[in-house]
Amino acid sequence: MEINKEHITGWLKQLQDSICIALEKADGSGKFLEENWKREEGGGGRSRVMKNGSVIEKGGVMFSAVHGNTPEFLLRENQHSVNDTISTDSKFYATGISIVIHPKNPMVPIIHMNIRYFEMSNGTKWLGGGIDLTPHYIVEEDAKYFHGELKKVCDRHHASYYKKFKDWADNYFFIKHRNETRGIGGIFFDRLNTDENMSFEKNLAFWKEVGETFAPTYCYLINKNKNISFNETQKKWQLLRRGRYVEFNLIYDKGTKFGLETNGRTESILMSLPALAGWEYNEEPAKNSLEEITQGLLKKGISWT
Amino acid sequence: MEINKEHITGWLKQLQDSICIALEKADGSGKFLEENWKREEGGGGRSRVMKNGSVIEKGGVMFSAVHGNTPEFLLRENQHSVNDTISTDSKFYATGISIVIHPKNPMVPIIHMNIRYFEMSNGTKWLGGGIDLTPHYIVEEDAKYFHGELKKVCDRHHASYYKKFKDWADNYFFIKHRNETRGIGGIFFDRLNTDENMSFEKNLAFWKEVGETFAPTYCYLINKNKNISFNETQKKWQLLRRGRYVEFNLIYDKGTKFGLETNGRTESILMSLPALAGWEYNEEPAKNSLEEITQGLLKKGISWT
Repeated sequence: MEINKEHITGWLKQLQDSICIALEKADGSGKFLEENWKREEGGGGRSRVMKNGSVIEKGGVMFSAVHGNTPEFLLRENQHSVNDTISTDSKFYATGISIVIHPKNPMVPIIHMNIRYFEMSNGTKWLGGGIDLTPHYIVEEDAKYFHGELKKVCDRHHASYYKKFKDWADNYFFIKHRNETRGIGGIFFDRLNTDENMSFEKNLAFWKEVGETFAPTYCYLINKNKNISFNETQKKWQLLRRGRYVEFNLIYDKGTKFGLETNGRTESILMSLPALAGWEYNEEPAKNSLEEITQGLLKKGISWT
Repeated sequence: MEINKEHITGWLKQLQDSICIALEKADGSGKFLEENWKREEGGGGRSRVMKNGSVIEKGGVMFSAVHGNTPEFLLRENQHSVNDTISTDSKFYATGISIVIHPKNPMVPIIHMNIRYFEMSNGTKWLGGGIDLTPHYIVEEDAKYFHGELKKVCDRHHASYYKKFKDWADNYFFIKHRNETRGIGGIFFDRLNTDENMSFEKNLAFWKEVGETFAPTYCYLINKNKNISFNETQKKWQLLRRGRYVEFNLIYDKGTKFGLETNGRTESILMSLPALAGWEYNEEPAKNSLEEITQGLLKKGISWT
């Protein structure tokens, strides 16, 4: 069987189903509500959002598959040289799943996953994706577990992948104007096709495994932390961390930019924003507080495994 | 006396003083706290922020005067053609005041003012600025008053200015991905130098009057609305309107972009963000509610005067 976009699209919808089932189970009471939407220029999506669960305050597991004329900014990105002529009749097809979960309890981390497949009518195609974790409070044991799970997936496919994609996540999920990372990172990769002597089919197998590792990894962290008690200071800190999350998503995130620029569905794209976020002018965590420890770990290049 | 950057800078600091005094009086209990900061590459600022006043939940009146090598993106904007060579030893000087006030009471509007002066070592110089209002609930009487005050200032200087700068504000303070304006607009202008047969000195006089009209205009709106009672629904709506404000500032606002790209002081730039903001997936205001009326008025081209 040829692996084509229909196969990949169908597989993503199956994955969306299984992730939603796993998250509902981990939450205990919250349910995902579904909306199907169409994009005027072609394609659409299946958005599933949970509000006010027992664990999940706001979370979305969003599937989309859009197609149409390739936007000019994408064509420019794919020029090999500035003198290449840009094809004006190029078509694109992009499908993927994006997930962001904002938990109620500040002791449960925020998580994000995105896996995406992109092809153009000239035969160009690639895979992209990643999973990264934003703990409101960084706990070494959990960070080791999270990176350990991602490393296992990577190592099963290519010896270079974990290091390469972990560094990529450190660089990508970086809030330049704050000089801090968004969280503890994870893995991030883009334009994966025949890298490192891996065939497209082998990279697809890796990519699928990234998608499949999301639910068990995050549900483990939910179950481990969901019953830890917390106080007002910790809740307030959570709001500030969410504010930084908003800053990253609106200023730097390429998926948000791509979605808004290709006339995607705004409510689905901005589902990633928390129900409530805060900003406090000139806030500094107290000396030797847990908040200060977390702040000190928001940097690139920490080896968690 | 020659009108030079020292004169303009000194005038702006005086204005910052008088605005802070007026806002403290209108608030009744809140006080501005001052921080002086230096920018590594040249210049600095005097930030004044009020937190938890009686009326003002979070507000900043920020003065800055920065200088250094002109950033490349600014040089490119000033190229007359793509073939012009870009001078690599150009210096710039930029000074201005930026104000954003987020009130506690959803019946008091959010306000923003910015006035700025910019010059380059090649002799290029211009004035920019504007005042715009973001009511959580749009009240026709207040909108008329606000635009009327701005129109009076404009009309005293040039017959074309109000219409021109009002349209400019409508187009500038527009949240494209929501297809809505940020609020009811106001006036906005940029690169004012010798427009419409006005000398730089005459435009400077107009620009100063814009700055001077801020405090009486906003204090009138504070005093008129600060004692109106409000309920939980209205407070929740305020959080959502603030969410849109955050979206505009982080995605579209050129001042924010300029500040972050020229290594400005992040805490001063992002002072514009509210203490608390919210996002709700797929929220629609109830039919015939005050919220729906406001939503329907968030569009360009409404004539308030």
